[in-house]
Amino acid sequence: MPVLEKQFNPPGISERPHDMGHAIYALACRIFPICRSITGKGVRDTIDILKDYINIDRHDVPSGTRVFDWTIPDEWIVRDAYVLDPQGQKIVDFKTSNLHLMNYSIPVQRVMPLAELKGHIHTLPAQPDLIPYKTAYYTDTWGICMPYRDFLALPEGDYEVVIDTEKRPGHLHYGEYLHHGSSQKEVLLYAHICHPSLANDNCSGLALLTCLAAFMRSTQTFYSYRFIFAPGTIGSLAWLSRNEYRLSRIAHGLVLSCVGDGGDVNYKRSRRHSALIDRIAASTRCGEDQQRLKVADFSPYGYDERQFCSPGFDLPVGLLQRSAFGTFPEYHTSADNLDFIRPEHLGTSFRMIKDMIDALEGNWTPLNISPKGEPQLGKYGLFPAIGGHKKNSERTMAYLWVLNLADGCQSLLDIAERSKLAFKEIAAAAAELQEARLILNLGFLNR
Amino acid sequence: MPVLEKQFNPPGISERPHDMGHAIYALACRIFPICRSITGKGVRDTIDILKDYINIDRHDVPSGTRVFDWTIPDEWIVRDAYVLDPQGQKIVDFKTSNLHLMNYSIPVQRVMPLAELKGHIHTLPAQPDLIPYKTAYYTDTWGICMPYRDFLALPEGDYEVVIDTEKRPGHLHYGEYLHHGSSQKEVLLYAHICHPSLANDNCSGLALLTCLAAFMRSTQTFYSYRFIFAPGTIGSLAWLSRNEYRLSRIAHGLVLSCVGDGGDVNYKRSRRHSALIDRIAASTRCGEDQQRLKVADFSPYGYDERQFCSPGFDLPVGLLQRSAFGTFPEYHTSADNLDFIRPEHLGTSFRMIKDMIDALEGNWTPLNISPKGEPQLGKYGLFPAIGGHKKNSERTMAYLWVLNLADGCQSLLDIAERSKLAFKEIAAAAAELQEARLILNLGFLNR
Amino acid sequence: MPVLEKQFNPPGISERPHDMGHAIYALACRIFPICRSITGKGVRDTIDILKDYINIDRHDVPSGTRVFDWTIPDEWIVRDAYVLDPQGQKIVDFKTSNLHLMNYSIPVQRVMPLAELKGHIHTLPAQPDLIPYKTAYYTDTWGICMPYRDFLALPEGDYEVVIDTEKRPGHLHYGEYLHHGSSQKEVLLYAHICHPSLANDNCSGLALLTCLAAFMRSTQTFYSYRFIFAPGTIGSLAWLSRNEYRLSRIAHGLVLSCVGDGGDVNYKRSRRHSALIDRIAASTRCGEDQQRLKVADFSPYGYDERQFCSPGFDLPVGLLQRSAFGTFPEYHTSADNLDFIRPEHLGTSFRMIKDMIDALEGNWTPLNISPKGEPQLGKYGLFPAIGGHKKNSERTMAYLWVLNLADGCQSLLDIAERSKLAFKEIAAAAAELQEARLILNLGFLNR
Repeated sequence: MPVLEKQFNPPGISERPHDMGHAIYALACRIFPICRSITGKGVRDTIDILKDYINIDRHDVPSGTRVFDWTIPDEWIVRDAYVLDPQGQKIVDFKTSNLHLMNYSIPVQRVMPLAELKGHIHTLPAQPDLIPYKTAYYTDTWGICMPYRDFLALPEGDYEVVIDTEKRPGHLHYGEYLHHGSSQKEVLLYAHICHPSLANDNCSGLALLTCLAAFMRSTQTFYSYRFIFAPGTIGSLAWLSRNEYRLSRIAHGLVLSCVGDGGDVNYKRSRRHSALIDRIAASTRCGEDQQRLKVADFSPYGYDERQFCSPGFDLPVGLLQRSAFGTFPEYHTSADNLDFIRPEHLGTSFRMIKDMIDALEGNWTPLNISPKGEPQLGKYGLFPAIGGHKKNSERTMAYLWVLNLADGCQSLLDIAERSKLAFKEIAAAAAELQEARLILNLGFLNR
Repeated sequence: MPVLEKQFNPPGISERPHDMGHAIYALACRIFPICRSITGKGVRDTIDILKDYINIDRHDVPSGTRVFDWTIPDEWIVRDAYVLDPQGQKIVDFKTSNLHLMNYSIPVQRVMPLAELKGHIHTLPAQPDLIPYKTAYYTDTWGICMPYRDFLALPEGDYEVVIDTEKRPGHLHYGEYLHHGSSQKEVLLYAHICHPSLANDNCSGLALLTCLAAFMRSTQTFYSYRFIFAPGTIGSLAWLSRNEYRLSRIAHGLVLSCVGDGGDVNYKRSRRHSALIDRIAASTRCGEDQQRLKVADFSPYGYDERQFCSPGFDLPVGLLQRSAFGTFPEYHTSADNLDFIRPEHLGTSFRMIKDMIDALEGNWTPLNISPKGEPQLGKYGLFPAIGGHKKNSERTMAYLWVLNLADGCQSLLDIAERSKLAFKEIAAAAAELQEARLILNLGFLNR
Repeated sequence: MPVLEKQFNPPGISERPHDMGHAIYALACRIFPICRSITGKGVRDTIDILKDYINIDRHDVPSGTRVFDWTIPDEWIVRDAYVLDPQGQKIVDFKTSNLHLMNYSIPVQRVMPLAELKGHIHTLPAQPDLIPYKTAYYTDTWGICMPYRDFLALPEGDYEVVIDTEKRPGHLHYGEYLHHGSSQKEVLLYAHICHPSLANDNCSGLALLTCLAAFMRSTQTFYSYRFIFAPGTIGSLAWLSRNEYRLSRIAHGLVLSCVGDGGDVNYKRSRRHSALIDRIAASTRCGEDQQRLKVADFSPYGYDERQFCSPGFDLPVGLLQRSAFGTFPEYHTSADNLDFIRPEHLGTSFRMIKDMIDALEGNWTPLNISPKGEPQLGKYGLFPAIGGHKKNSERTMAYLWVLNLADGCQSLLDIAERSKLAFKEIAAAAAELQEARLILNLGFLNR
């Protein structure tokens, strides 16, 4: 990705992909405190911060708008929420953690006995020190979320519950940014923007994609890259309903979430199972130790890839995460905080996603022009002068694989798949072999 | 399977599949004592008992009839058999256990020294307390089967062997019962009827199929169900030779044996490997804990599926068992008795087979009529109002899978296979989604 | 393979494949001491010995000849090589082990300090008692190989290095022998001949193929068998460059190496992945305990199959070994000596390769002429008279598999694959079934 001119100068964005972890973490820290929901101010405020990095467009969809089987709900406004115990002590305070208030709670200002209050309290008995994250977008109810240990200690008596919220016609918002490539074919990169103070899910994804978009401003690409930051489910549906006429441009796509923890990388295939993006994910490696991604089959549960992969769209969109949603103990709890995500993990995730983009952009088809036998690699400086070793280097193996399979019918990705080597390694070897004039670049077949 | 009028009132047959285990066990107990063989009275007596349950036809094939490469042998008649030791004590008595006499033994009435007798005795040294089950249908010989422990204790001296048997022209019999469906396409359900007092192999299969046929009398089906109770190998060959002209009606089939023990369920695929019945078996679950069936590839050894799956017929017939023949220690020994099979296991097997029939009958193809994105399941009462949970219920996953794959090209079985959920779960979810008018029933493609 | 007239009488070659291990070992012992390289006298001397067994042709390719991307180098002549320590003691002597001298070392006659000498010494620190095998065919350098333990004990001081070698125009040689079959289609059998005193790699392969060729002189075959003994890489390329016009005759091929140790058998598939030879390897068993071969996917690293499987040729040639190159500790060290290979292992390898040839020659297609049901095997003496056993013999299973799959579309190899039985077992059962007139031999489809 050669460097172009730069207009913005977003904080910490480097041209060296190895420096990006801290910039992403810094942005995640800025957006973490905001109480986002599927509508309203939290999303607006978040998009405003992203505007420091990229020239993002905010789209507003009015309450009441039909999007397929759904209707945009009224905007949820939250001003304050707390609970006073019988002694008048604040035992729960929205200002301390916005997870204390169930998202989309209706307003309450009332004194009630403990028994009634308990019917509205959500806890995690198995994780007694954590606040759970709960939502009730499409029901008129309210809820208080708190650590189970605190819940057990509540004395009998009357409690004052104050939930100063409001639902009224407003907007659902989503952010959109297009990196223009030379082609109108698009790569969709999507992160959900509706979760309140949860760091991995999904401040990490929002921050990484934003920094990636900023980073890519200095590169030129074949594909155009469409970055979308929208509330979960209804946000992606809103975007889809407004963009149906040009979905045929979406050639590949990734939904990103939970990319800041140190877990293994999990990729969930698109509904198509073997779309190019699915194959690239399986040929990508992550981190210093070049770990393979754990590639799972498509399933209709997860993030917004569910909508992109619904049968009426069936787009080639996969889901990329570190630890998979629902499987790590911090998921949807107050432990998914800024200590849980680390700059180094964000940096590793960034480089892995950049590798995937490089593979999308660079999957050319080589032709071996001396296909009868192996060429004498030593003549080209591509083989050690002294022989008899017990094992070859990985790069030497990559040379041999590219030469062996470069029959003009197999792309670098095909070769990576059969060799079981990383696409990146195959691509580097192919570049050297092309330099040595041992293979020709036949271009991009079926791009 | 909606309820129709009832004509018979066989003992213990309920309309509730959960009550069937005891009825099946009771029937197995009635037929257990009979000394069956591949011809003659034992089969006649057994079929007479089955007639209390269903309107079964008995077919008689005369000795000497050619059936393909085989010839129906003379009928074997057994009146008595015993061995007296040197002191005149009955040490082996056919009346105690019909396994003591090798099936199809020729008549003997003679005193002989121990050494000569030993040449005709069959034992199981590794299971010294059990009588083995032995046959010699097509050879003129005789044999005594006894526990190895008793065999070791035989004193030297002269023994009187009395085998009061006879082979003379007679008949091979098989029973046949047809449950009429709306179509002439048939499902073949087969159990062998030639084993003497062995409970799991195959009183269990005979009793289960008979009770199933009785149970189904109150149901209407698409397929017609042909129940066959015939002696192993030569009985199925006799049936095949008389029914060649309409084998093309056999759309699916199952051979049943050993369905009364508590082992895992073993299914052996048909020679076609991926016939509908094979696929249904792989999508069926068994018992309260919803265990998957152990699905094995086809092999030409086993029960009468060998004949149905011979290359000249190649019918889509699989083999269904609990513990697989030859693998459980009680197999072909006197330990395969009425203690070895249990009503609860027979009931579990019954419900599993009924589930397979339900899948054959109910493999319709759904069409999602709001295929763009997911419908808002909460509106239809199909999704919990409060969100943020770490994991979905299995039913919710079934909704999502059906909606995602209901593109009009995939049947419920296709969906069960890709989702790895049980057919029954997918079918239940699809019924609810159809009720909610979220999917259409496109009917049965390629039935 | 019926016996024909015999002209040669090579030492120890029997007509009974079970007697061949010692003959092969004896030949390996004769050629072991020779200092082979990719050119010159070592190869000539080796071919001369092979001439005692078969009427082998020696081909001479002059230095400077272009073979594809390579050029035949000058011939390397070695007369002596040794190192004297400061006390004048011979610490390294080529006459003791030709591995001490890096193959293709340039001449040296000079006194030098230990530090300079060390820059040319190769050792194996992890195997401190062994001499490594090193080569530098295409570079002008020199090297001494010695045990790491000796290397550590070298005192400071001046050393005299004498390497009496020479590079001058000469020849690369390869040996070729054709066993004529009734067809012009050929099976290529290849062993590399360039390694000095290494027993398994590849005196074992050279000796086995030579003895196989001698053994086959008394047999008539359908295929013609082309045995090639050529230096690694450049030798096979030389043969390919001279035989391009008739490569289309090569129907199957095997590269052999390391066939004398007691390890499991490793087969590496051809680039085509499922060529007949690849399928036969997977259906072959080895040794008394009938072990399956470990079948690995093709990889472009290894022996000369790399050249045969280069994309410009893409011949169906696999690699057969016992312990795979690079994986056993003796590989490319002085421990790969005559104690490492054993007559019994060579004999086992021989019989396995003969089984593969028998499969190539004998993969006929059977037709079951009584395909409706199973034939009554007992009538033909192919089934035990007394039944009720818990398990069938492997031969009985082979009968049943052949009968079940002999629909005229499946060869014996197809049947071996689906039954997971050895080709040899299936072929033996098929021969008996043909003898019993139960199946017809439809001949060789697509041979």
